[in-house]
Amino acid sequence: MKKALEDIVVLDLGQIYNGPYCSLMLAFQGAKVIKIEPIKGENLRVRRKGDSHELLMLNSNKKGVSIDLKSEEGKQLFLDLVKKADVVVENFSLGAMDRLGLGYEVLKKVNPGIIYASGKGYGLDGPYAERLAMDLTIQAMGGVMATTGFADKPPVKAGPALCDFLGGIHLFGGITTALYQREKTGKGQLIEVSMHDAIYPTLASALGAYYSSGGKVSQRTGNQHSGMATSPYNVYPTEDGNIAILCVADRQWHSLLRVMGREDLLADARFQTNVDRSANTKLVDEIVTSWTSNKKKLEVSDVLIEANVPHAPVLSIDEVADDPHLKYRKMIREIEHPEVGKIRVPGSPIRLSESPLEEVVAAPLLGEHTDEVLQEMLGLSEDQLKLLHQKNIIRQKEKVMQ
Amino acid sequence: MKKALEDIVVLDLGQIYNGPYCSLMLAFQGAKVIKIEPIKGENLRVRRKGDSHELLMLNSNKKGVSIDLKSEEGKQLFLDLVKKADVVVENFSLGAMDRLGLGYEVLKKVNPGIIYASGKGYGLDGPYAERLAMDLTIQAMGGVMATTGFADKPPVKAGPALCDFLGGIHLFGGITTALYQREKTGKGQLIEVSMHDAIYPTLASALGAYYSSGGKVSQRTGNQHSGMATSPYNVYPTEDGNIAILCVADRQWHSLLRVMGREDLLADARFQTNVDRSANTKLVDEIVTSWTSNKKKLEVSDVLIEANVPHAPVLSIDEVADDPHLKYRKMIREIEHPEVGKIRVPGSPIRLSESPLEEVVAAPLLGEHTDEVLQEMLGLSEDQLKLLHQKNIIRQKEKVMQ
Repeated sequence: MKKALEDIVVLDLGQIYNGPYCSLMLAFQGAKVIKIEPIKGENLRVRRKGDSHELLMLNSNKKGVSIDLKSEEGKQLFLDLVKKADVVVENFSLGAMDRLGLGYEVLKKVNPGIIYASGKGYGLDGPYAERLAMDLTIQAMGGVMATTGFADKPPVKAGPALCDFLGGIHLFGGITTALYQREKTGKGQLIEVSMHDAIYPTLASALGAYYSSGGKVSQRTGNQHSGMATSPYNVYPTEDGNIAILCVADRQWHSLLRVMGREDLLADARFQTNVDRSANTKLVDEIVTSWTSNKKKLEVSDVLIEANVPHAPVLSIDEVADDPHLKYRKMIREIEHPEVGKIRVPGSPIRLSESPLEEVVAAPLLGEHTDEVLQEMLGLSEDQLKLLHQKNIIRQKEKVMQ
Repeated sequence: MKKALEDIVVLDLGQIYNGPYCSLMLAFQGAKVIKIEPIKGENLRVRRKGDSHELLMLNSNKKGVSIDLKSEEGKQLFLDLVKKADVVVENFSLGAMDRLGLGYEVLKKVNPGIIYASGKGYGLDGPYAERLAMDLTIQAMGGVMATTGFADKPPVKAGPALCDFLGGIHLFGGITTALYQREKTGKGQLIEVSMHDAIYPTLASALGAYYSSGGKVSQRTGNQHSGMATSPYNVYPTEDGNIAILCVADRQWHSLLRVMGREDLLADARFQTNVDRSANTKLVDEIVTSWTSNKKKLEVSDVLIEANVPHAPVLSIDEVADDPHLKYRKMIREIEHPEVGKIRVPGSPIRLSESPLEEVVAAPLLGEHTDEVLQEMLGLSEDQLKLLHQKNIIRQKEKVMQ
C-alpha cells in the first residue's frame, strides 16, 4: 500500500515541542508537511546559535517556508496555501491566530474542508484558558509534580517534557480522526487539545489511591509503589548505577529469592504474599539491596532476565542515546544534515504494517523550501518571488555546501 | 455531524492502562467498544476487592463481555465477533495472542479489513522484545528516571504512568490513521506501538543538552532548567506549598521584579539578560524565594497572573481532583455507577468541534453485556447462551440493584 497519509498537505505553524511533534508524526506517515516560520525563525530555532538539536529532532521530513504572517501580503500567501491544504496545525498562545486575522472562522471560509488543529496549554475556554502555559507550569498545575519525587524532598518535575508531547500526540489522534470523518462528510472541523486535559488521565494511580482511601492525600513515594501496595517495587543501588525491580506475582518473588541465594526465605511468613511483603517493605528492600549493591547493574539485569523477574537497569542519557534496541527499532536514526553533519533524530513510534514510513530526511533550514513551495503550490513566478523577498515578506536561507 | 467514529466496532482486549486508554478514546469518539475480559476479569479488575477506581476511570462507555478465550468455543466466539468488527486492541505480553491462536495472521484471514492494534512494552521485535515490561521498567530503561529528580538524590520515577498513556495514545493515533487509509483501500493492517519507542522523543531537552554539549551527561537538575540555561526557572516554597515560576523573556523578569518590589534590580548588571541571570541562578532563586516564602501559593499566583509572568502553583492531588478548570472543561465528570455510587471519571482530551463526544456512561461490570452483545452481534439464542454459561465459557454479572 501507499503511505497512509500520502496525499495530505499540512500547514505546520507549530513551535517548540507540542505542535512540531504532532506534525512530525503526520510527516512520517507520508503527509506533505510545510513548516511555516516567521522571518526570524520559530522560537526553538532562535533559542541557540544555530539550529538546536531539539529543532532537528522534531522537524525531520518537513518543507521549510518562512513567511511574515503579520504583513498583508504574507497573510494572503497563507490563505492561498490554506485553499490547497488539508490540515493546519498551530500551538500559539490563546488568540494569537485570531489576532493575525487567521483564526479558524476565517480559514474555514476559504476552505470548508480544512482541519484546523489547535494545541493549547489550558484549552480554548475555561477559567485558566488565558494563562501562559509551558510544560513546567502544566506539570505544576496538573499534578505531575505533586506525585513525583521523595517524601522528604520538594515535589519535582518529570524530566521529559511529557505535557508537550502528550498534548501533541493527542492532537495527532484528533487530526487523523477528523481526516477519517472527512472522507465520509467532506467537511473539516476544529480540533482542540489542552495539555492540562491530556495529563489528567495519566494520574490514574494517584487518583485511584486518593479515591479508594476516602480522599486521603498520599505523600510522594519516590520509586516505591504509589499505594505502597506492591513489594518489592523500588529502584535499588548497584556498583555502577541503579536498577528497578518489582514483583507482581508470588512466583516472581520466589524466582528472585532463588537467584539471590535466599531460598531460606521461601517459606518465611513475613514474605508469603504481596500483602505480607508490603507490610515488610523496608526489610524486603534491605534484602534486595544487599544483593544488588555489590554488583554491576547489567550483571543484575542479566540474572533477572534469566529468572523472568520484572526489572530494568536505570539507563543514563548517554546509554539511552546509544541503546541497541532503540537503534534496532530505528527509533534512533543517524542522518546527514547539510550544516551540522551527522545527527541523530527519532523515528516514528507509530508503525503500520502495510504503510511504509517516510525515509527520514533532515529538518529544513529556515525557509529552505520557501521558493519551491510557493512556486509549486501557488504558481508564483520568479519575479513575484523576488519582489516578496525584497519586501522581506518571505525568506529563503541557502544551504551551506560542505 | 455524527460522532466521528459512529459506525466503528472495536474489540478491546486491553488491560491495566495502555490498551484501555486507547480504546476509551475510541469510545468517546463514538465507536462501539466491546471490552472482552477473561472469566475472572482483567488484571486491573482483580487488583482490588471490587472494581478499582483506575478501572472505572479508563473503561467508561464500553460494553462488558466476559469470554474464556482459552476454550475452543470461546475462541470461535471471538473469531465470529472479529468478522463483524473493525478494530482489535490488545496489550498482552509479547506472543500471548499467537499462543491463543488469535494472532493477527489468523484474524486477518477471517476479516481482511480488520485493524489489529498491538500495544507493547518494547515492541514486536528487537533485542529487548521478550522482556517483561511495565510502566516502571520502561521509565528506568527509557531515560525518564535518569532525567527526573535532584542531583543529590537517586533517580526517581515520574508520578504519572506516562509510558502506559503515551503508548496508548500513540496506538489510538495509529488506529485512526489506519481507519482513514482503509476508507481508500478497503484493507486493514497491523498497528504496533512500543512504550519504549514512544517515550524516546519526549527526552528532547535532555538529548539536546547531551548532543549540544558534545556528549556530556548532565546531572539531574531537580526543578531547574535541564540545561541550566533559563533563570528564574524553578519551584519556589510558599507558606502552604510550592509555586513554579519561570521567565523566558526579559520583560517577564522586569514584571517579576516590579511585583516583588525590587525595582532596584532592574538595571543590575548581574540580571540584565537571561545569560546573566543563568550565571547568577543561585542569587536569582534567593531573591524570588524571599518574596514567595511568606505568602500563600494562590496569593502569589494571583499577583503573577496580573503581571503576566509564567507560573503555576504546584497543586496537590486533592486540589487537582477538584480543579475548577478541569471541571469546566468536563475533564472531571461525576457519574453514577450501579455498585459504587457517585464516581469521578475523565472526559476526552480530544475535542472535535463538529463531532459530539459520547455522553459518559460508567464502566461495565464484568461481563455486564455478555448476553446482549452475543445476541445482537452473533444472533445467539437464549438456549445457546445458557449452555455457554453452564460450561463457564462466558460469564455475565448481574447489576446489583440499589
